[in-house]
Amino acid sequence: MLAAVIHGARDVRAEERPEPAILTPDDAVVRVVAACVCGSDLWPYRGVTPTNAPHPIGHEMVGVVELLGADVTSARVGDLVVVPFSLSCGTCQACRNGYPAACDQVTFFGSTDRQGHPVDGAQGEKVRIPLAQHSLFPVGLSEEEAEARGLVPHLLALADVMSTGLHAATAATVGPDDVVAVVGDGAVGLSGVIAARLLGAQRVIAMSRHADRTALARKLGATDVVAERGDAAPDAIRALLGGDLADVALECVGTEESMAQAMAVVRGGGRIGFVGVPNGGSQLPIRTVFSRNLTVGGGMASARRYMEELLPRVLDGTITPGDVFDLTLPLAEIAEAYAAMDERRATKVLVRP
Amino acid sequence: MLAAVIHGARDVRAEERPEPAILTPDDAVVRVVAACVCGSDLWPYRGVTPTNAPHPIGHEMVGVVELLGADVTSARVGDLVVVPFSLSCGTCQACRNGYPAACDQVTFFGSTDRQGHPVDGAQGEKVRIPLAQHSLFPVGLSEEEAEARGLVPHLLALADVMSTGLHAATAATVGPDDVVAVVGDGAVGLSGVIAARLLGAQRVIAMSRHADRTALARKLGATDVVAERGDAAPDAIRALLGGDLADVALECVGTEESMAQAMAVVRGGGRIGFVGVPNGGSQLPIRTVFSRNLTVGGGMASARRYMEELLPRVLDGTITPGDVFDLTLPLAEIAEAYAAMDERRATKVLVRP
Repeated sequence: MLAAVIHGARDVRAEERPEPAILTPDDAVVRVVAACVCGSDLWPYRGVTPTNAPHPIGHEMVGVVELLGADVTSARVGDLVVVPFSLSCGTCQACRNGYPAACDQVTFFGSTDRQGHPVDGAQGEKVRIPLAQHSLFPVGLSEEEAEARGLVPHLLALADVMSTGLHAATAATVGPDDVVAVVGDGAVGLSGVIAARLLGAQRVIAMSRHADRTALARKLGATDVVAERGDAAPDAIRALLGGDLADVALECVGTEESMAQAMAVVRGGGRIGFVGVPNGGSQLPIRTVFSRNLTVGGGMASARRYMEELLPRVLDGTITPGDVFDLTLPLAEIAEAYAAMDERRATKVLVRP
Repeated sequence: MLAAVIHGARDVRAEERPEPAILTPDDAVVRVVAACVCGSDLWPYRGVTPTNAPHPIGHEMVGVVELLGADVTSARVGDLVVVPFSLSCGTCQACRNGYPAACDQVTFFGSTDRQGHPVDGAQGEKVRIPLAQHSLFPVGLSEEEAEARGLVPHLLALADVMSTGLHAATAATVGPDDVVAVVGDGAVGLSGVIAARLLGAQRVIAMSRHADRTALARKLGATDVVAERGDAAPDAIRALLGGDLADVALECVGTEESMAQAMAVVRGGGRIGFVGVPNGGSQLPIRTVFSRNLTVGGGMASARRYMEELLPRVLDGTITPGDVFDLTLPLAEIAEAYAAMDERRATKVLVRP
């Protein structure tokens, strides 16, 4: 079968790989209907994080169950499922409390599972899913129906970006009284805009200077746009808000600059939901957090949990998180999918096996 | 008048100082009924933070209003008041949102105000209070009544430690389902125990290895005590909780070790309320916060706000936060007050002018 393999910086290839098989009773094998490239895939693609040995890549997928291990009763063969970007047991304390991303057995695509078996990447034709009992999320539609209704991109967004945006807003306890500034206009930032509106924020400020993304942010629910960055950003927000700063910032990038920006645009006692994978020196300066009385929460989204909240909103059309996809390519052109995102020719690329 | 002045490490003296006077229309002059020494006063006392020039010290006080500036209508001459450890305007965005500790004009005892006038320390006979309109908190009792009912220590605790304990628990959104571990058995940690119970925590674990403080923690509401530290602490908590970790940790010390301890004893998706003034390398390791899905909040307590919640509980006897005082000394013996706390002969020393 064909699957994406990263060999090093700017070197992702579609290669022939062995067909996956059931290796443990808690496994499933899923045929991929749609996968995509994540902003966080660009860290190894750009060489920011090293690739020491070639490995399969990709962690977002919608697919159809082909094989099930003996212990998996949560889905049936033929079910259309979304699989969250982190796989989890469903029974440890973190899982029981709604934080499967912090599961004791958390397992990632393109890595190895707790038994030491390799795990496929989601950018491929088929994938073995360990911890399948808790990780498979059947959506209650057939593949044909989802395709016919154009829902596949929206369902795929639940695997990571939309759940991550909702995690940022949930961790920052966004509510109706809040003015929310969203730092980052990538797919996660745009999903953060959707999430802030979904939780009722009275005003959502997209911090963006790219016309196409600004337009999409407005379509998805942003009430205001601020193009300024650095020291000019809090001034621009004060100008918008009659002298005030935002109540909440959603940090959706993961760099030192974006975290500093998030901290600079919220009032004393403000909240920051941070979901950008920390890279490039991003830190939480304890004295600033202390003296400004900030609350900081977030981290890796527990997509498995948020999917349950989001699926009904996708099915009834309240939200259209798949709007973040602005390019679709076949799996064979995976190298171009990465290049398009790296060069900002696309916000997020959907990949069809 | 007599007032405490810090000259350098282990050198605090009771000295004659000029009587304070009204300098701005938003000033008050308050005669101190009781003051105390704070754990954070020990940082300069121990030389951990340098004292570059001698200055008055102390930031917790209960007193009687003697003089009022023309603009101050929130109290009357003769009122018994608690004054929060940070002084605030009451009108900026942070104040309006309940975070006066992050006030745009925040002013500290023993420092200078925004007009450049020196501000007295609270460990003295009298104190000029800038930003008095918002900072004075009349308790609705006469000095004589408060003394007769033995309420002065409990009221004094609202100026900082009890409000700080409540800030830790509030920032960590403690509620009835929570198991709360309290890191630190000083006066703030003990106040954190009271606060966690006040917010309904089902189980409060005091992390302490000192018999006297352990006993007091149990009196104040701790359901369990864990003496283990470091790597042994999470194991001890798992043994208590049938394999689980705490939902919440209150970090009430401010060192690198205490923050690491707090992070180690909570489950994935846990919350940390941190109120220990960061010293000695304390930091928030972003990758741990991210991967374990922690939420971290706290900082300097907005005592002015928490006093309002706590006063009725002190007056009706629900809480007795003044129990943290285990030594009372006259102001003239301020050096001994510091030494007793530094040498851990006292948990917290109340000082009478």
